[in-house]
Amino acid sequence: MKNIAILGFGVVGCGVAEVIAMNKDRIAKRVGEEVRVKKILDIHEFPDSPFADLITTNKDEVFGDSEISIVVETIGGARIAYEYTKQALSSGKTVVTSNKELVSTHGVELMQIAKANNCSYIFEASVGGGIPIIRPLHRCLAANKVERIAGIVNGTTNYILTQMAECGSDFEKALKEAQSKGYAEANPSADVDGIDAQRKIAILSTIALDGAYVDPTKLFTVGITNITTKDMEYAKEMNASIKLLAVFENKEDGAFAYVAPHLVSKSHPLACANDVFNAIMVTGNALGDAMFYGQGAGKLATASAVVGDVMDAALHQDKDAHITEWFVSDKPVLSPIENHVVSVLLRLPDSVSDEAISEAFPEISCQPCVYEAEGEKAVILGKDGDMTEAQLAIGLENFDNVISMIRIF
Amino acid sequence: MKNIAILGFGVVGCGVAEVIAMNKDRIAKRVGEEVRVKKILDIHEFPDSPFADLITTNKDEVFGDSEISIVVETIGGARIAYEYTKQALSSGKTVVTSNKELVSTHGVELMQIAKANNCSYIFEASVGGGIPIIRPLHRCLAANKVERIAGIVNGTTNYILTQMAECGSDFEKALKEAQSKGYAEANPSADVDGIDAQRKIAILSTIALDGAYVDPTKLFTVGITNITTKDMEYAKEMNASIKLLAVFENKEDGAFAYVAPHLVSKSHPLACANDVFNAIMVTGNALGDAMFYGQGAGKLATASAVVGDVMDAALHQDKDAHITEWFVSDKPVLSPIENHVVSVLLRLPDSVSDEAISEAFPEISCQPCVYEAEGEKAVILGKDGDMTEAQLAIGLENFDNVISMIRIF
Repeated sequence: MKNIAILGFGVVGCGVAEVIAMNKDRIAKRVGEEVRVKKILDIHEFPDSPFADLITTNKDEVFGDSEISIVVETIGGARIAYEYTKQALSSGKTVVTSNKELVSTHGVELMQIAKANNCSYIFEASVGGGIPIIRPLHRCLAANKVERIAGIVNGTTNYILTQMAECGSDFEKALKEAQSKGYAEANPSADVDGIDAQRKIAILSTIALDGAYVDPTKLFTVGITNITTKDMEYAKEMNASIKLLAVFENKEDGAFAYVAPHLVSKSHPLACANDVFNAIMVTGNALGDAMFYGQGAGKLATASAVVGDVMDAALHQDKDAHITEWFVSDKPVLSPIENHVVSVLLRLPDSVSDEAISEAFPEISCQPCVYEAEGEKAVILGKDGDMTEAQLAIGLENFDNVISMIRIF
Repeated sequence: MKNIAILGFGVVGCGVAEVIAMNKDRIAKRVGEEVRVKKILDIHEFPDSPFADLITTNKDEVFGDSEISIVVETIGGARIAYEYTKQALSSGKTVVTSNKELVSTHGVELMQIAKANNCSYIFEASVGGGIPIIRPLHRCLAANKVERIAGIVNGTTNYILTQMAECGSDFEKALKEAQSKGYAEANPSADVDGIDAQRKIAILSTIALDGAYVDPTKLFTVGITNITTKDMEYAKEMNASIKLLAVFENKEDGAFAYVAPHLVSKSHPLACANDVFNAIMVTGNALGDAMFYGQGAGKLATASAVVGDVMDAALHQDKDAHITEWFVSDKPVLSPIENHVVSVLLRLPDSVSDEAISEAFPEISCQPCVYEAEGEKAVILGKDGDMTEAQLAIGLENFDNVISMIRIF
């Protein structure tokens, strides 16, 4: 019997209990013994829940119980979840989580505590919800140098952008729609400002860099709050979709990681991910492109990945159930974003002359966009790979009347 | 030092040697020791190859060398590859392969020999080339009951169908194009008749059924040789693509596995896989839909998966590097395909009356297709889930002038 505890009986925690109950026999058969939820820790009791008898508000019933060998942390955030995770790992209990904020902030330390106590800190569900991405990236692509990761990793913003594209809603209306459906929080900032995506690409980048820690708070990040219906019109005319992409690149000119809205051609597989779906394209130097698509969030989908990790931990007794240990490199792991080559759609009033643009962006390729809204001048800059973020920023300083600027994937 | 041998210096075998050379340091760092190709066995010598000094025509130099612990089988087919695989496994050497014919035909026996000799038979690359699918299906989705797998798993036929759709070529012309580009063999039967896809879905089905062996030769299989430019016209008008789908389903009404061309809505993520790309959609009862997309074939892509397996075998010393052992069930694992619920586009001459159709398909939903070519009557049968393959077959017997019949996904 493998006894586990769930910390936090929210959506995902409840989903974990449900998946374990729903697929009990299958899980037992695969693991070779029953996997039982022995305790659920929460600050509330849930008297009407089918799991009510497992729920406790007393943490000693979890941390003091030597029978519990695996702890699922589904509290979220980096405060109490951090304290509890440290406590569990320090007492040799493996921790499985979907908590991208905690992993991306304290992952190095937590993996060190796990190692020192002969257990593991495992987090497949922290990126892409139920979609297998971390284990495939780490194991199946092990023979590759990962050259790029480009992902739609936040379902809230993908839902909003899909609504805007397909229903003509403006951002505010689409956000309200998302909130009414439970796809966005009352305070949606972590999603719409790109913070959630930032944490996820920091996790994936660290794995792609073989454990060299990437600090999410240092990543260039732009959210979707400035996307307008007119931007959507341009996207449609350009046969593209606007997607919030979280990107990691590792080539000769350096390693970069960032989050920003991009125009993605409708013929690109990433563009097939709409609504709350996620899609992560990985490019390996042997494999080429591979894409992982599915439900990036949601109770049972995320629980699917958490329970998959629990089973792995139970089966492998914490050996090789986790990824290459993270470490803080003494050298910078990422190159300054200013050096990153970029291409953009730039929308200006049509009073701006061609000469003004070419003076602001000297020796940078500049083509007219296939579409221009009335009263506007729209150009594609840097299509030939001849513009860096630094040059873009410097060039933009020449204009105080930029209508919109969107990066092109 | 982990010493490996490669059997068969064809495209994939050569790719494996190249990937190991290209990413030597990364591989050594991850595995904890160098992984070296010690010998390459082939019936030819390749004096001009950079690997010439490793190549031997003498199999004793592989099978008699106790230093060689892992053997990569990239000969293909189920004759000499079968003999060599048995020999390697019997002497305790783990075998890693991309050989879908051998795995799907003799997988049960080979896994038993591996187990008896404390080594493994591993085959991530046998389905989907470089795309991670077997390991994610087996491990990351372990908490799920797999309800459906639907895959575009053959790059040759996908290339042909894409050419037909995008360039208006007929089947013969598109096939010649594929052959000229090296995407199809001189004898393309295994691909265009669906045999390759049949083997791959048999492998995936066996894994989804927790090792209960699915015999590929028993699966209902239709290839693409009867697809015409007119069918492509219908697909376009219906906003769909024609794809050769390999499908596994496991629901209340039974488990089914089959291969056939299907009309797939262009809004479905599977439709984003064109040319030689593969895409496999998996539906789990907790996860929902997840899709894996990428290069299903090709030298380096396939080698990427093979070398990933080699690294896994090296790291885990053959423990848990493989999947749940296959076995032959004493009960039928699949339900008869006749019971499978199906929906089709049926094209008939317009001389056929509505009454004739409803008499042939009594109590089966029948709607006119949104498009009808001149001189034709086109209907969608079974859209309401009220028709089985048996009823379809019986109904079709009433007509000797069916122009075309394509299943709808």
